[in-house]
Amino acid sequence: MDKKEAPDWYKPPAPERSYRSILKLGKPGEVKHPSDSWRSMVTEELGLDEEHFRERKHEEGNSTVSIDRPLGLSHTHITALESIVGGENVATDDYSRVKFSYGKLLDEAIELRREEVSSICDVVVHPRDKNDVRAIVAYCHEHRIPVTAFGGGSSVTSGLRPEFGGIVLALRTHMNKVLAINEKNQTAVVQPGLMTPDYEDALNNARTRYGTAHDYTCGHFPQSFPLCSVGGWVPTLATGQASTYYGDAYDIVFSQEYVTPVGSFKTHDFPATATGPKVGDIMKGSEGAFGVLVEVTYKIFRYLPDNRQYFGFLFPSWEQAITAGREVMQGEFGHPAVFRISDGEETETIFRMYGNELVSRFLEMRGFKKMQRCLVLGTAEGEKHFAKHVKKMVKKISRQNGAMYVSGLPTKMWERDRYSHPLLREDMMDFDILIDTVETSVNWENIDSVYTAMREFVKGHPNTMCLTHASHFYPQGTNLYCIFGLRYTSLEDFQTLRSGIVDRIVAAGGSPSHHHGMGRLLAPWIEGHLGREQMDILRALKRHFDPHNIMNPGALLGLDLPEDQKRRPSAQSPGIATKGTQTV
Amino acid sequence: MDKKEAPDWYKPPAPERSYRSILKLGKPGEVKHPSDSWRSMVTEELGLDEEHFRERKHEEGNSTVSIDRPLGLSHTHITALESIVGGENVATDDYSRVKFSYGKLLDEAIELRREEVSSICDVVVHPRDKNDVRAIVAYCHEHRIPVTAFGGGSSVTSGLRPEFGGIVLALRTHMNKVLAINEKNQTAVVQPGLMTPDYEDALNNARTRYGTAHDYTCGHFPQSFPLCSVGGWVPTLATGQASTYYGDAYDIVFSQEYVTPVGSFKTHDFPATATGPKVGDIMKGSEGAFGVLVEVTYKIFRYLPDNRQYFGFLFPSWEQAITAGREVMQGEFGHPAVFRISDGEETETIFRMYGNELVSRFLEMRGFKKMQRCLVLGTAEGEKHFAKHVKKMVKKISRQNGAMYVSGLPTKMWERDRYSHPLLREDMMDFDILIDTVETSVNWENIDSVYTAMREFVKGHPNTMCLTHASHFYPQGTNLYCIFGLRYTSLEDFQTLRSGIVDRIVAAGGSPSHHHGMGRLLAPWIEGHLGREQMDILRALKRHFDPHNIMNPGALLGLDLPEDQKRRPSAQSPGIATKGTQTV
Repeated sequence: MDKKEAPDWYKPPAPERSYRSILKLGKPGEVKHPSDSWRSMVTEELGLDEEHFRERKHEEGNSTVSIDRPLGLSHTHITALESIVGGENVATDDYSRVKFSYGKLLDEAIELRREEVSSICDVVVHPRDKNDVRAIVAYCHEHRIPVTAFGGGSSVTSGLRPEFGGIVLALRTHMNKVLAINEKNQTAVVQPGLMTPDYEDALNNARTRYGTAHDYTCGHFPQSFPLCSVGGWVPTLATGQASTYYGDAYDIVFSQEYVTPVGSFKTHDFPATATGPKVGDIMKGSEGAFGVLVEVTYKIFRYLPDNRQYFGFLFPSWEQAITAGREVMQGEFGHPAVFRISDGEETETIFRMYGNELVSRFLEMRGFKKMQRCLVLGTAEGEKHFAKHVKKMVKKISRQNGAMYVSGLPTKMWERDRYSHPLLREDMMDFDILIDTVETSVNWENIDSVYTAMREFVKGHPNTMCLTHASHFYPQGTNLYCIFGLRYTSLEDFQTLRSGIVDRIVAAGGSPSHHHGMGRLLAPWIEGHLGREQMDILRALKRHFDPHNIMNPGALLGLDLPEDQKRRPSAQSPGIATKGTQTV
Repeated sequence: MDKKEAPDWYKPPAPERSYRSILKLGKPGEVKHPSDSWRSMVTEELGLDEEHFRERKHEEGNSTVSIDRPLGLSHTHITALESIVGGENVATDDYSRVKFSYGKLLDEAIELRREEVSSICDVVVHPRDKNDVRAIVAYCHEHRIPVTAFGGGSSVTSGLRPEFGGIVLALRTHMNKVLAINEKNQTAVVQPGLMTPDYEDALNNARTRYGTAHDYTCGHFPQSFPLCSVGGWVPTLATGQASTYYGDAYDIVFSQEYVTPVGSFKTHDFPATATGPKVGDIMKGSEGAFGVLVEVTYKIFRYLPDNRQYFGFLFPSWEQAITAGREVMQGEFGHPAVFRISDGEETETIFRMYGNELVSRFLEMRGFKKMQRCLVLGTAEGEKHFAKHVKKMVKKISRQNGAMYVSGLPTKMWERDRYSHPLLREDMMDFDILIDTVETSVNWENIDSVYTAMREFVKGHPNTMCLTHASHFYPQGTNLYCIFGLRYTSLEDFQTLRSGIVDRIVAAGGSPSHHHGMGRLLAPWIEGHLGREQMDILRALKRHFDPHNIMNPGALLGLDLPEDQKRRPSAQSPGIATKGTQTV
């Protein structure tokens, strides 16, 4: 196929009220078609023939959503809900029922393309405020009706699927306001359905908009930034790309207000207390299974984009880059904001997307070999001199570990494109190519074994891509984020591969999730990972908050999973490795 | 009384196996007698006459401990315990029973001086390892015997009193080892009975002792440093004096291993995960009511004492010093390690202890007025240039807020003496003068109202001292630590005053505890503070972990408190103040 002849990419937008309009990432008309070089690389890596991109192959889901699924809720219940929120805020049409029942998991996209929906809700309710939520949850508790909260709908772990139907609370419709900026405490009070870009925009322009003394930033920039609501950060334990400096959602939240079947409460606004186990922290990561987060107070940070320092390095090897990352995090000079190490295969992909052959050969001569060399991108933020000094120290440590400085340009390019990369998914899927991600948390002791186990497993399958990066750094470890690609054969084949990766990760001592949450996708691994004693604690909390099991019921957090659906590591998890440990 | 004539201070050491040997702070022979200037200040402030220090007035508790208290445990139980840990590790003698039943709360010291002990344990067991603890807890669970873990015994909130007798686990005796230093992860695995100074000493000398590449520090320096064990940090949510940089116990812990009546578990060694609510964090602050912490992995930090930067400032007012503290914490240039603002009265006390009248008058002329001027002490730590830059920024912000730089000397003096100040307590008590502390967490919005309410209440009582400092800083707030002093009239009068202070703090929106834990002392405030819904979560956890209520049973965390013993704020708690909040 002539490289100049572009494939017949799908022409957006997807038809209104179509299945495709639901599965699509990004805004309705937004696309990011693969470049020629990316496409030729994929063709090569996945062992496709030259003809592969001649025509689109996969179901496209262009029909108008139409389901033949009776309501599982009686007219009495619908009327009761209407009397709470008003008739205009209760929807039972097919499109609403499907739209607010699906997240962004690849498997869900495949279902929607087939136009064969599985579990969906019966009613979508658009609460006007937290009092509405309180009344709805109380009603559902009384009448044993399942309730699922839906914010941006960006879950990639099937965290929000209404497994048993019932009600979906569409929080984005009305509960989407910044309620207060408290400049002294440096906090913002927000409603959970506020979309993250709107929140960041409000903070970045706080001086103009609210007359504050400073502009602010939320500090939280997940890959799902354009798609996620601020209320989803905490229940899923999300992490943003600048978390190495700002902290993750767990750190950034200041106080929370929940509505649960057994009552509502707001945690206190204290920076630290010693008043027993911290209730706010018990709620973090509860994925809607304990209650609905109806209001949240986040810490905010001075917005100082002019001070941002960009840097980029090429390391001869993954090991050297990881060592440098560890040294940076343990160096006691502050932390970079973005810090991102791409492994050999991911670095090669980036070279193929952006680089040129001449540069590549020159680098080979300098000892930076293909499939071994690793690109490191990053930024330092904060007060001007602080940010400069962090960059200086990162440079020093990187050079001590064999790196070549490659300027801040690659980071700037990454920053420009970072939220649009996921859009490639639709074009690829149209041509029967699946790209998905798995991610894990590791400490510095077990990173090698987890990385090796994960990569060897994926690459043990012919014609697979496996791009890995570490992108959230801590003094005690980091995460591994694996983007894997393969040609579609069947949904089951793909799911088997993905489950196999998680099995290998957990067996090698990694966590089943670093920041995607568990959802229904990863629920089978939770008990094997935590052990019965720790799972029993989650079960006890669930029983307390939700005695009738109405809050996001089902597999979530592995709570209701039958024994035969629980997966356990295939080998004894080594936990913390003893290699390098000095017993004294 | 002639200043040159020193009072007849008690001559240490206290008699062996005496009540006094139990209540004493510091090492057996260690004393720190009040200076003449401190004594004359106390005389003045508390409205005492010149004769007051002529002779010691209070009971001294010099008798050998001897109690007429039958064992509440049968011979069968004692034998069973002996068969678990060996006869040499089970003690039922009077001295052991009293020694391992008392913490360091002032009220406990008064009891011991009177030689009238209240609740004590029946048996002291010295477990050899975590397997012993497991066997003992299982036995006690089966036979409904109360179990209390005892580390350093430094609780000042009566957190470890065996209210219902039973067994005390003396963890310090055998379970006091550093088990491993993991240099890659930068963590240390320790047993809970390891004393904090021994731990810090091991880390500071890690290169010599363990052949590591660096020396390390634990980063945790509470006032109780000489007295506390490392296993007490987490269950009580302790905070060290350098927490503004290193974080508090909550932050410093990496993973934990617990023995509970319903099973044992170790949390994972990950820097962050998204695998549901974090079990490790649920256990933090549980004060022994859920289980026994039998092993803990702490994060450790590079030990870089040569890089430490000292600074000191005098501010014209409390408000200006607090504003500077907030600006420092929100400035995005890293945080100082120690940062400590003394209020007007505390600053005057320090002047009286160390300063001279000439300097004081000179400062008055410069606008730093007595009882208004505030001393700020601090250090910056970490990598050399980082620490210097933090100091530079603190200087800049302090000057912008009206401060005069007074060098690092006052901080060095504070650092030298910091752990010996509490020793003054015994000399003072010998002369019927009580000095105690109350502390609270505040955010920047409510600090003024809490400070004012607390101080006005104490000073509303004639002849009281009320020295306050803020010493743990966060971007969203700080703590207030109040040292109050009064002449002893009766234990009840003193307790009424102290309870009144806590009432005022909580009513004004402060937390009942920032880092002392709740223990039995503060338990009455917990439900009023958290509200029923949040207390119910703690109750549900307690029921799960400890269905027979054997783990540190009683008032702890307010779990078993009868309704009429629960205190509520006397006014509606304002929670987060709305002053300055911009509703948008």
